[in-house]
Amino acid sequence: MQKTRLIAADKVEGTRVYDLEGNRIGSIENIMIDKLTGKVAYADMSFGGFLGIGERHHPLPWNLLKYNTKIDGYEVAIDRDKLEKAPTFEPDDHPDWEDPSWGQQIHAYYNVTPYWL
Amino acid sequence: MQKTRLIAADKVEGTRVYDLEGNRIGSIENIMIDKLTGKVAYADMSFGGFLGIGERHHPLPWNLLKYNTKIDGYEVAIDRDKLEKAPTFEPDDHPDWEDPSWGQQIHAYYNVTPYWL
Repeated sequence: MQKTRLIAADKVEGTRVYDLEGNRIGSIENIMIDKLTGKVAYADMSFGGFLGIGERHHPLPWNLLKYNTKIDGYEVAIDRDKLEKAPTFEPDDHPDWEDPSWGQQIHAYYNVTPYWL
Repeated sequence: MQKTRLIAADKVEGTRVYDLEGNRIGSIENIMIDKLTGKVAYADMSFGGFLGIGERHHPLPWNLLKYNTKIDGYEVAIDRDKLEKAPTFEPDDHPDWEDPSWGQQIHAYYNVTPYWL
């Protein structure tokens, strides 16, 4: 059993997310769990803005995120340009996380296998 | 894709847990996620006590919990007697969730496959 393999859900929330060049791109606000498989399906990452103004939320398929103990944060292999054009929602929005077309759009954009397959 | 398959981690926290007779046995305080597989490994369930006095925490392997939409809570097939003798920790304790012998003891007690296998 590998050490530091487990993390409390409330510790994931607030963890910083970086791109592969080490630039901070956001923080994890929340995670969505698939009750059927017990797996994390999405991270809801906040991006940009100042004190909540101009901030956008990015639904990221969980498989995109790799935890890097050296930087105590998650790394995603997405460049800033790709991220800026990605599907987002406003902080006050309550997107329908289970809308199949929305889910398909997100997974297709990042080119990863959907959690339901 | 099945509806209501996803749940936000911060909604799992606080969800009630019942035995198969419909008796409330506790509430989920926290969940522990396996970073390697992206799966939930444990629920940390509080049990008993009043305003935190006499309360004990039970580490429950996630596979034990089945969500039941009718009661808006999790069901576990554990009777009260089994639960009262189960491995617990005090609310102020910080158990080493990754101690292999502790993990093995918990999974053996409930007779479920460990998350790391």
